[in-house]
Amino acid sequence: MSYVPSSELVARIADGDVRAAGRLMSRAEAGAEEARAALAEIYRRAGRAHVIGLTGVPGSGKSTLVAKMAQALRARGEKVGIVAVDPSSPYSGGAILGDRIRMTELANDPGVFIRSMATRGATGGMARAALDTVDILDVAGYSTIVIETVGVGQDEIEIAHASDSTIVVSAPGLGDEIQAIKAGILEIADIHVVSKCDRDDANRTLTDLKHMLALGALTRDKPLWQIPVVAVSSYTGQGIDALIARIDAHREVLKSTALGAQRRGRVAAFRLAKTAETVLLEGFRSAAATISAPLAQRLAQRASDPYSLARELINDTIRKEYSNELAR
Amino acid sequence: MSYVPSSELVARIADGDVRAAGRLMSRAEAGAEEARAALAEIYRRAGRAHVIGLTGVPGSGKSTLVAKMAQALRARGEKVGIVAVDPSSPYSGGAILGDRIRMTELANDPGVFIRSMATRGATGGMARAALDTVDILDVAGYSTIVIETVGVGQDEIEIAHASDSTIVVSAPGLGDEIQAIKAGILEIADIHVVSKCDRDDANRTLTDLKHMLALGALTRDKPLWQIPVVAVSSYTGQGIDALIARIDAHREVLKSTALGAQRRGRVAAFRLAKTAETVLLEGFRSAAATISAPLAQRLAQRASDPYSLARELINDTIRKEYSNELAR
Repeated sequence: MSYVPSSELVARIADGDVRAAGRLMSRAEAGAEEARAALAEIYRRAGRAHVIGLTGVPGSGKSTLVAKMAQALRARGEKVGIVAVDPSSPYSGGAILGDRIRMTELANDPGVFIRSMATRGATGGMARAALDTVDILDVAGYSTIVIETVGVGQDEIEIAHASDSTIVVSAPGLGDEIQAIKAGILEIADIHVVSKCDRDDANRTLTDLKHMLALGALTRDKPLWQIPVVAVSSYTGQGIDALIARIDAHREVLKSTALGAQRRGRVAAFRLAKTAETVLLEGFRSAAATISAPLAQRLAQRASDPYSLARELINDTIRKEYSNELAR
Repeated sequence: MSYVPSSELVARIADGDVRAAGRLMSRAEAGAEEARAALAEIYRRAGRAHVIGLTGVPGSGKSTLVAKMAQALRARGEKVGIVAVDPSSPYSGGAILGDRIRMTELANDPGVFIRSMATRGATGGMARAALDTVDILDVAGYSTIVIETVGVGQDEIEIAHASDSTIVVSAPGLGDEIQAIKAGILEIADIHVVSKCDRDDANRTLTDLKHMLALGALTRDKPLWQIPVVAVSSYTGQGIDALIARIDAHREVLKSTALGAQRRGRVAAFRLAKTAETVLLEGFRSAAATISAPLAQRLAQRASDPYSLARELINDTIRKEYSNELAR
């Protein structure tokens, strides 16, 4: 299609036009100034979809699981959006992975929209763009939206947690180092999944998780919801329906108890903070770019120290960037 | 020892007092206001040590390699500092790992100082604290300092690159997903290491790396230094001496060519930017904490949008935090 102003894209998106949706997503990712009013309108209209954040360490079989979940949701007539913030996702890099699963079937289904996002070099801005993308899919009529992130790196973990239901995927047979990384993400789960449960060693992973939950360390502050552990196999299909049932149950609890408003409040607070920090840093970086060189040189010569020079740089940029704001 | 003011710690550290060094590191990590002047003094005195940043994906055998390197450097009389910014490091979590290697031998050597730093929840501040720790070890007389980070997450990669010589460790036989993550870190290497070269499949990893380097994609902008690929086995000891020789050669090139000043300039610019961003964000977060709740509530109700509210929050906090600065 020819060039369409962002303002017009919103109406098309609300009519379910996927090309318009893709167009606005690209502008959101690029941080285009022009998309801002459209994204504001999108945000005000969104809020109907159930958003699932799904994360897990590399090798836990996240993407295959998401594909299976999407198939199950499709089977009952839902439109499904998938936002993959995962450099190893087969959606974004089929050539990198052996592509053990057939994504083409899903990708050709008009009831499924898959969007891959790069993670490298987009620190901060990535969270904002991913959540904008979710809202666009929401307004476009997708009833369940899955954000898949690889569970390494603070940003990726926070994004998975900025959802209605957070699923953490564990897998048997991963190495010790991977397990150590995993420890940082277990606590954000509303639902635990143990993948590859057709394997002999899956029972140990299941038992370990249940033991941790029984110890209560991971259930505190969530008295209205008992965190389940669901064993699935994307290979045999075992457990997928049970997982969907647990997601439905969690959604129901959010709707019928105080947990829903609490959750929306937490996600909004996170989103406000993240957006503000990104905007603040972007402004700072662009202002600092033109004035930091002499300060960096003094630092390289060890003529002053990082903290003193940082303060100087901050004060100079703030004076430059915000003097008009402050004069008002 | 009883309470010692930070100002006094610097003199003790310069005398090689390791307990004083540990004390100031803890204060630096905690972000203690009181440590600031001492750290400024440390920074001005530092700059003698050769700092090696070492990173690689989980499972690449980083910690074992660092231990072997430390032994080799000790054998020629160097004092060695190790800063492990790695949640899976055996230094920090021997209980998590199977502890396949004996760290006790190293840990009991007074010529080796090992400092482990947590990574979770310390976004931004971690880089600052890690680099402060390196400077403290520098002033305390450690001649080679290795910062080990796990090569996942932007922060960890940047820290490994904020060094004189950056080593990227690859290993044979890791899964596809791990390889995909790895792609993001290859370009920062001054020296490539292929670990576990006693394995049959190590040759393929070696060939792949050399092929990439031959293609030139990873060597551009570094005409004064040919990036080598060193095969090592921490198990048999093969290649460790060759690796040390390459590090020495890189150090020599930094000393004798324009590359050294260029490198120091880049690291200083990174450190200034990182410190400033951390200080700016810390100030913003503490100021925003008291005024953001009503804005987050409006966001949760979708009465406004993230960007507009973020701008409002930023302007309010800047006005609150910097009005005195700006009035001057």
